[in-house]
Amino acid sequence: MSAQAPHNTLLIPGPIEFDDAVLQSMSHYAESHVAPGFVKVFGETLTLVRKLFQSTNPTAQPFIISGSGTLGWDLVSANLIERGENALVLNTGYFGDSFGQCLETYGANVTHLKAPIGDRTPLEEVEAALKEKSYKLITLTHVDTSTGVLSDVKGVAQLVRRVSPDTLVVVDGVCSVGSEEIAFDEWDLDAVLTASQKAIGCPPGLSIVMTSGRAIQAAQSRKTPPGAYYASIANWLPIMQNYENNKPSYFATPPTQLVHALHTTLTQITADVPGRFAIHTEVSDKVKAAAAELGLKQLAARPECQAHGMTAMYLPEGLVPADVLPGLLKRGVIFAAGLHKEIATKYIRFGHMGVSVTDPKRGDVDNALAALKEALAEAKQAKGL
Amino acid sequence: MSAQAPHNTLLIPGPIEFDDAVLQSMSHYAESHVAPGFVKVFGETLTLVRKLFQSTNPTAQPFIISGSGTLGWDLVSANLIERGENALVLNTGYFGDSFGQCLETYGANVTHLKAPIGDRTPLEEVEAALKEKSYKLITLTHVDTSTGVLSDVKGVAQLVRRVSPDTLVVVDGVCSVGSEEIAFDEWDLDAVLTASQKAIGCPPGLSIVMTSGRAIQAAQSRKTPPGAYYASIANWLPIMQNYENNKPSYFATPPTQLVHALHTTLTQITADVPGRFAIHTEVSDKVKAAAAELGLKQLAARPECQAHGMTAMYLPEGLVPADVLPGLLKRGVIFAAGLHKEIATKYIRFGHMGVSVTDPKRGDVDNALAALKEALAEAKQAKGL
Repeated sequence: MSAQAPHNTLLIPGPIEFDDAVLQSMSHYAESHVAPGFVKVFGETLTLVRKLFQSTNPTAQPFIISGSGTLGWDLVSANLIERGENALVLNTGYFGDSFGQCLETYGANVTHLKAPIGDRTPLEEVEAALKEKSYKLITLTHVDTSTGVLSDVKGVAQLVRRVSPDTLVVVDGVCSVGSEEIAFDEWDLDAVLTASQKAIGCPPGLSIVMTSGRAIQAAQSRKTPPGAYYASIANWLPIMQNYENNKPSYFATPPTQLVHALHTTLTQITADVPGRFAIHTEVSDKVKAAAAELGLKQLAARPECQAHGMTAMYLPEGLVPADVLPGLLKRGVIFAAGLHKEIATKYIRFGHMGVSVTDPKRGDVDNALAALKEALAEAKQAKGL
Repeated sequence: MSAQAPHNTLLIPGPIEFDDAVLQSMSHYAESHVAPGFVKVFGETLTLVRKLFQSTNPTAQPFIISGSGTLGWDLVSANLIERGENALVLNTGYFGDSFGQCLETYGANVTHLKAPIGDRTPLEEVEAALKEKSYKLITLTHVDTSTGVLSDVKGVAQLVRRVSPDTLVVVDGVCSVGSEEIAFDEWDLDAVLTASQKAIGCPPGLSIVMTSGRAIQAAQSRKTPPGAYYASIANWLPIMQNYENNKPSYFATPPTQLVHALHTTLTQITADVPGRFAIHTEVSDKVKAAAAELGLKQLAARPECQAHGMTAMYLPEGLVPADVLPGLLKRGVIFAAGLHKEIATKYIRFGHMGVSVTDPKRGDVDNALAALKEALAEAKQAKGL
């Protein structure tokens, strides 16, 4: 049925399978980045990002920039905090470590609150930390791609507003935006950074950042100039505002084809944002129940800490990813190995986001669960387990 | 003949028209960025970048990073120079100003040697400047997209090696790589930064930087840490080395579809690099002769200062771009308006790069010249000139 060449089904926690229409947008003919047709598409795409974040506050500002998700860390670190100011990183794995390094590159004093593997830091500990010093910003990874741990963004944001109201709440949503509920205005967030290639369902190459009026204000009232040029909010802000007002503008050439693809997928997603979260939750519940039936324990032990767009599962004692992943591949299914370095050989990751979830006719998730069952049995038999 | 939807021919100085095969690569099905198939393609693409730069020196290092060409300025400014060190910018227009701003963002002391509009700074002035202070690096814009002025990269590099051998020679090749000759090793350059969407013929979204062993050494022997995280050579170097050695590696997710497209176009280009420069020169000569016949004066007055991938032409007295560009568009041809702010309303820009030049069957250049002649006559008549 698909216009795509036959291929194994990509079910890692991003990049993910693409809808045909999204992929077709990628081969849009050459266009000037300042021509009326593209200006309109880019402007609409920015407006769709607001919709994706359920945001109607006109002081909030979306950014779409050529780059990977990682670039969003620089955008935060070079603009929203100054040298010598304090940042609190709620660290649930690999990506908390890296965000902390990025903040330090731009001179922030970083304090990590490390949660045990598979868990998140209790709100009481966050509260105690916030009361100890004055933090310019707090960061949390909404879903840690390395472990599948889901953070309590709403709870943390409420806590911050209560005990340290000026602290900016920054969410790394690379592995959550599009599959986990985010109500940007209602939760009173200051920055959510994400990328195009996970639950948003677009090919990789776009850094997408949503910022609050408070965050923009912080960037504009810095005592020192921004720490970066390409990742400078001051350089991009007029560009984004102009495009959304249907005016061409130039700072750096936008990736026109990727913007078309983003426009296509966001048009699909924003047709029913709550419905999208609901179906991701429903399919996630099904995957997690099936995994439990196969005797596989999740890294994220408590249900409230479990992401809805991916499942990280410990393998049975005696098996490593290399015992199971080839058996999945043989059945046309691609999962990812572990990434958290302390336990990387003990678990595998199954990404269930985007069209693989929203289009049940594809059968991606059912096929994957059947393949997992068989590949596990095969691996156990081979090892005499 | 083309698989692309009917559209006007894009003849601006980037983005440019795409070869069908390049555009087809953009809609490659979803792939893991660490799967063997993609690792091979990315590794080969890095090797093709070496070939594009006619480089065989194993200490040279190519980088391919998700981002626009502008990101290359950050890569240079955050890694190859430290706070308080001197940078000399040979400024031939808009892009020299901006590169200088980027260098200053990261703390460099920038001296601009501004050439008159349409010209370049004489080598004697560059020599005098280099003898006045010690410069960590010198930058020059190989082709200034705003004016079509071609710099003498080879001459400047020779001069630097003679009078200030430790100064790093940094070339902004965004509007030159793929259409102007560059012999990276032979000319002894230290960094050439470019983007995917101009003469390389790939959609926008890739920052491509070629560095010398001397540049890498400068980055690695910094007294202070790099000024950026996403644009850090230290973060990307092992990734590029691993991929080129066919090993998966992760710092940030590469834009898999764009890398496929770059692989496709570089395979085409590197089949005959000298032939590519020759045909761009030949077609450029033809465009410039035709412009002269129409009585249009170039911004770059002296032939040795004229780029071969674009032509910036003053309009006849009494006409502005808005008098002529719609007439071109009516005939299916898109040129760009002026960009250099002092004279923006006085000239237009015609980009002749990539398939529009290398595939004469398309007739792009001949059609454009015919359309230009008609649109000019029409505009003059309308104004009673």
